[in-house]
Order: sequence, then C-alpha cells, then structure tokens
Amino acid sequence: METICAISTAYGTGGIAVIRVSGEDAIRIVDRLFVGRHRLADTPANCIRYGRIQKTDRSQVDLNEQTEVLDEVLCSVFRAPHSFTGEDIVEIACHGSLYIQQTLLQWLVDSGARMAKAGEFTQRAFLNGKMDLAQAESVADLIAAQTKAEKDLALSQLRGSVSNELGALRERLLHFTSLVELELDFADHEELEFADRSELTALADEIASKLQALIRSFRTGNAIRNGVSVAIIGAPNVGKSTLLNALLGEQRAIVSNIQGTTRDTIEDTLVIDGILFRLIDTAGIRETQDTIEQMGVERSRHAAEQAQIIIHVVDNEDLRFKIEDLRFSGTIINVRNKADLLEHSAFSIQNSELLISAKHGDIEPLKQELVRVARAGMTTEAVMLSNARHYEAVSRAYEAIERVRKGLDDGLSGELLSLDLQDCLAALGEVTGQITNQEVLSNIFSKFCIGK
Amino acid sequence: METICAISTAYGTGGIAVIRVSGEDAIRIVDRLFVGRHRLADTPANCIRYGRIQKTDRSQVDLNEQTEVLDEVLCSVFRAPHSFTGEDIVEIACHGSLYIQQTLLQWLVDSGARMAKAGEFTQRAFLNGKMDLAQAESVADLIAAQTKAEKDLALSQLRGSVSNELGALRERLLHFTSLVELELDFADHEELEFADRSELTALADEIASKLQALIRSFRTGNAIRNGVSVAIIGAPNVGKSTLLNALLGEQRAIVSNIQGTTRDTIEDTLVIDGILFRLIDTAGIRETQDTIEQMGVERSRHAAEQAQIIIHVVDNEDLRFKIEDLRFSGTIINVRNKADLLEHSAFSIQNSELLISAKHGDIEPLKQELVRVARAGMTTEAVMLSNARHYEAVSRAYEAIERVRKGLDDGLSGELLSLDLQDCLAALGEVTGQITNQEVLSNIFSKFCIGK
Repeated sequence: METICAISTAYGTGGIAVIRVSGEDAIRIVDRLFVGRHRLADTPANCIRYGRIQKTDRSQVDLNEQTEVLDEVLCSVFRAPHSFTGEDIVEIACHGSLYIQQTLLQWLVDSGARMAKAGEFTQRAFLNGKMDLAQAESVADLIAAQTKAEKDLALSQLRGSVSNELGALRERLLHFTSLVELELDFADHEELEFADRSELTALADEIASKLQALIRSFRTGNAIRNGVSVAIIGAPNVGKSTLLNALLGEQRAIVSNIQGTTRDTIEDTLVIDGILFRLIDTAGIRETQDTIEQMGVERSRHAAEQAQIIIHVVDNEDLRFKIEDLRFSGTIINVRNKADLLEHSAFSIQNSELLISAKHGDIEPLKQELVRVARAGMTTEAVMLSNARHYEAVSRAYEAIERVRKGLDDGLSGELLSLDLQDCLAALGEVTGQITNQEVLSNIFSKFCIGK
Repeated sequence: METICAISTAYGTGGIAVIRVSGEDAIRIVDRLFVGRHRLADTPANCIRYGRIQKTDRSQVDLNEQTEVLDEVLCSVFRAPHSFTGEDIVEIACHGSLYIQQTLLQWLVDSGARMAKAGEFTQRAFLNGKMDLAQAESVADLIAAQTKAEKDLALSQLRGSVSNELGALRERLLHFTSLVELELDFADHEELEFADRSELTALADEIASKLQALIRSFRTGNAIRNGVSVAIIGAPNVGKSTLLNALLGEQRAIVSNIQGTTRDTIEDTLVIDGILFRLIDTAGIRETQDTIEQMGVERSRHAAEQAQIIIHVVDNEDLRFKIEDLRFSGTIINVRNKADLLEHSAFSIQNSELLISAKHGDIEPLKQELVRVARAGMTTEAVMLSNARHYEAVSRAYEAIERVRKGLDDGLSGELLSLDLQDCLAALGEVTGQITNQEVLSNIFSKFCIGK
C-alpha cells in the first residue's frame, strides 16, 4: 500500500509537532530527508534517532548543489507488524512552527509519500487486522472525549468490550448456522438434524437477551458520548438566559483557564460531576403571528420535545409556559427562579419546585437535580453501545434472532431458519467489520481527524 | 532540580498529544502511572515503550482498590545528559483528547511533578549547558517561524551562528584583556607591556568591524523575524480597505486551506515570495475635530511614520492624503487605484505610480514592488542579528570597543583601557549568557510557549 503522511498533533503552533509516516516505504522515504549519525534503515524498532531534516536541490543551470536544512528533529521508528497501523511507521517530532510542519509534509510528499486522508492510519490498522471496526471507531471517540465517562466508554470499546461480546456470540451462532446449513445438503434425509434444536433454542435465547441488554445500554452510551440533552423553557422574562449563563458561567471559567484558546461552540455543553449536558437552544419558542417566524418556533419546539430533560422555569410572578402543549416524554424539572424576591409573592410554592436565583448564581439545587435525573436514566451495563451505527446493526441482529426464535417455536425448516440466522450473523459482523463494504468504511473514517 | 511536566504539542484536540516530563525523577514519576511489559526504569535511553497509564485509588472507607485506566500510550525515554534539557526526560504520546491531556497532566502533578513554566524546558537546556542563551532564544523564534527566511534565520542561530561569531571574538578579547590586567599588577614597572599594543589595535579594529556588520544586519534580521511594516494610507474612499482585503484575500485562502482552524490575528500579516509583511492598522488616520478621536488619529499617524513602507493610494478622482505632513523616512509606493475607471479621468497619470484595481484583484504590480523594496533593504550577511536584546548588547559592545580603539590611539593607560575592555566583554557575554542574571533569564523565557 502507498505510504501516507500527516500531521498527527493538534493544528497550530506548539513546542513540538509530530508528523506520522506509515507504509512500506516509510523508513526509506524519511531516510531521503534525514541526516543523523545513523540511517533510520539501520535503526532498531521502537528506537529514536536525533538528526536534521534537509534537502539538496541540484540547480539545472549551474549544477550547483544547494542544501536547505529544515529543522533538527527526533525520529521514532516502528516496524511492521508491531506498530499502530501494522505497517512500518516513522514519527517525526519537529519544532512546532506551522511553516516547519507544512514544509516537512510537503517534502515528504515530494519524496514519495502521499497525504493521508482523514482516519486513514486507523483505517489501515483495521485493514491490517490490528483492531476490528468497532475498536477502530472508538479511537475517534477517545480523541473527542471531554469527560471521564466518555473516555472510560471509548477506552473500554477500544480495548474490545463490544467486539468481544459480539464476537463470542457470533462465533457460537456461526457454528450452529453451519450445522443447520449442513442439513440442507442432505435434504433427502429429512430425519437428519446435525443442529440440536433445543441447544439452538437456548443459544438464540441467550443471544436475544444479550442483544436486548446492548440495545438498552445505548440510551446511556449515547448520553455519555453525545451528552444528556436539556432544554430550558419558560414564559418570557422569567430569566431563562440568565439561568443559561449561570450554568455556563463556571464552565466558561474552566475553559478559559486553559492556555488562552477558545473552543468552537456550535451548541453549549456543560459538564457537571463528569456528566456531559448538551443545552438545546430554545430561545425561539414564543408566541408569534408571523408565519415564517412560526416555522422557527416549530423547530425549537420540536428540539425541546426531543430533549431528555426539560427545565421549566417560572418566576416570582408565577408566569407559566404551557408545557402541557409539548409532546414530551422525558423528565421535567420545575424551577422557581428569582427566589430572592419570593417573600413579596402572593402564591404558595409547590413542593416539587426547586428554588434558585440565576442572577445571584444560587443554582446548586438545580445542578444536583440534573445529575440525579441523568444518573437515574443511566444503566451500568459492563458493555455499552454508544455508536448509532452499532445500535442500528445490533437492533437488526436482534430482530433476526427473534425471527429465529419464533421459527424454532413454529418448527420451521432449516432452509428458512438459515436465512434469519444469516441475517443475524451479517448484522453482528457489520459491527466488528467482518462484513463490510468500501462505502461504509469511507463513511466511518471520513469522520475522523486527519493524522489519526 | 524539581521534575517538571507540560503539554508540548499545540493546544487542542488532535490525533495524538505529547506530554513532556523532565528532571531527576522523570522516569520514576511516570513509572508510577505506567504499566507496560517493561518498566521505564529498565528501558534503555532513546527507546519507546507501549503501555497503559493507570492509577489505583484506595478508598478510605472500604479499603477497596479502584483502578482507572486513562489511556494507552507510547513513552519515549531519554537519559541525562543526552536529552533536550540535559536531564532525564519521558515524553508520553497519548490520544489527543483534551480530557486525556489535562487529566494526565494532573496525574503527573499528583505523582510528584510540577507544571512547567513557559520556556522552562529550554531554560534548563541553557542552565545545563546544552546550548547558550542566544541559541535558547532562537528556539522560540524557530517555533514562531512563519516563512522560510524566518526559519533559516532562527535555525542558523540555534545551530550557533551568532554564538560562534561572538564567542570567538570574546575569547580573543579576553586573552588581551587579561594581559592588559596583568600589566596592572606590575604597575611599578611602567615599561612592562605584556599586551602588544599593535596586536591589540588590530584585534579591536577587527572586532569593531564585525560588530558593525552585525549591527547593520539587524535591520534585515528584524524585518525577517518581525516582518516588514507596511502602512496603507490615502484620502477617504480611495479604496484602502478594498486594497487591504485584496492583499489579504489570497492569504486567507491559504490559511483556510489548512485543517479548518482560524488563526488569531492581532495584526494582519502577509507573506509574498517568502517575505513577511506586517500591515499596520491606519484606519484611524482621518480629519476630525473630536479631541478624544484626535488622540487615536495621533497614534495611527505615529504608527504609520514608524513603518518601513507606506503605500499611498490615490484614485481616479485624484484625491490625495497630505503625505508631506508625515515625519516618514521609509519608502513610499504611490499607487493609483480604480485603474479600470481611469479612462474617464481628466488628469495625467504620473510615471512613478503603479496602476491597480483593488476591487478586481489587479494588484500584482504592487505585490512585486513590495517584494522589490523589501529585498533592497535586506543585506545577505552570513550571520544576522534578529533579536532586539542582542542588538542592544552588541551596540553597547561596539561603543565600548570604539572607546578602546580611541584609547589605544590616545595612548591611554592600561587601567583605563581595561575598564572599556571589561565593558565590551560584559556586553558580548550577555548575548550568549556567560554573563546574566535571574531577572533577564525570567524575562527571556517567559516569552516562550509552555511545553518548550
């Protein structure tokens, strides 16, 4: 396979940057640019060499040689198959100037490497059998992890939790399926049954129950990976924005603690006690006569209805949002804002209401309640699904195994059983990548960052 | 010295990130968290180990052990004195999630390391004699390099160009100074002259001429390092902003070619043919009666006066900025914008004017002229100063050696010569750091990024 190269560290200027080169010619290509006490070709696996990156241009006109030194670097050499990709890899640690990073990449391309596509290193690790597809996908999740829970989930998947669970089930199912299919070859001898139907029933039951547990775990896995969605709604002027800012306020402070770089926020997220909350923008929900504006309101309303938690804010004047109009099946947390002004109010506070003052930052009861509700909705399965693609495939596998169970009950012929068994095997195989196609692979790895 | 740690790669999420740990206890501290086939303590220098980073917390309540695995990592081991800092170093390459990077840093601190200050690794390299001060300073320049010229200059300084030049001069001067001072010990024997005055004169001449060349080179070195400053001025509505955007337009396209991250622009910079131009904001220069606004105008005017190049824009209506009011000693490039509308104009175009159309992006003649003017102002000295601190010290050394030369001419006593010789030696020693103090060092390294 072609040798590929990419900057593997975060984009920008840093103390150092690492450029990764992987493929059959990785060591040869870097050796064309590297000058040290030893050639990389003579460097043992897993060792580091210090040297210069330089290039000599021979001028066509006067045959003069001009040598340009780009940088002083450290090169780490890994040899197939004992590397991340399973191929020869050289990782070049250079000074973290953008000019140096980009020029080095250009020189590597000039010397015979090709720029790696997004996720191509991990894709090669998959294609070379260093990890299965579910593990490969967890690499991207691990890199994106913002909380301990996300990291734990991604790392357990990288270390094979989902793969092992499904792999073992698939293996046993495969054994039975071949027995069932063997019977078909002896179709004339109807009395022949290689596959013990009662054992097959027991296995199908076990598989169905394990798949069901995995499907259940997706709600939690997805919440961990993508955050628990929260909508703040309420009548105008009850302090929704102030509450949003109070919730995000501390978060922003944490973010700005880190070396002066802001992070792109498409959507506001918030971490409380290691749980990621995703705050849905519901600023648009209000009464309006304008038709076009109504469409926006509908979108916001729909987003709120999809949320897992709604924070319903009322204030000391008891103005209420018509929450009963929402088609909502999650948890509602009722919050009474402007608690500091309550003594002047005329109505009685309901028991189920949390008293807060967004303006004064007194929102601790609300944060505790958010964590409590989120935790209550989370299972603690040992193996959890968090990837929508896996969820979809496991759901299909579950439907297929349910058909198998029904078929066994109904005494269906091996031929018909076999079709459903194959469906189940195929769906399970899609998760771990035994069964896949180029389009699916491209789609999966295109979501990776370049350099991984 | 305490063991220090920091993230050495650029801030943000990437495929991988590198955390550097340096100091006496570096290997011991990382070994507390690292679990692999081998301990790092048993790892030869310049080798890489694969393993897990994990931590076991013993609960006070039930004496249960809970092990948290943070990540799967590669650890590179370097051993004193053969490392960047001259101390033991472990570089941990982890997955580039912000959560993982920051947690790993926290765990290292919990295990006995301390967060490194800006530039502290390079400062240790200096203090441990791995490089002199001028070389250490060039590390920051190398990391900040945006163009080939900047990179070449910083790399040549890192490889010792300035240090060697000044070091050799200082060595020879030191020899003569000690001879002169030896004479003072034999003050009774006035006829004694250990230091041959004619040799000393020749050396002082040579030093003066080399220092003068270095001082001259600073104009170029500074332009390479900080960019050639350019101000665009002109009457209102001649198209200054459109020209600025046309100049920056392509630049922005180049920047956005790179993995979707924008770069902080405090000031607009522009690279043409490998030369860095720094565009000074002169939007504020306009006629105004408002007193406070006038202060802003003064600041802008002052900035324009300090520029190396002024682009003076007039348009097809021949409105002119009163450029003769500026106290400006650089080069003025006269540009006539809206060239596409010129045929309808009533006045004759001056020969020295460049015709452009910023709106249509026809600005090639201006770009060529900018490069020509910038190149004309650049020397091609083999050794160049680019650091204002060095420039200032070398200037003081030059003044001192001039006093020595005059003293030799005037037949001054050894005692008086010695004072000026000492001044010169001290100034030269400041550049390379033989003579320094904690305040100067702190000031120099505080300008570095953290992690280098």
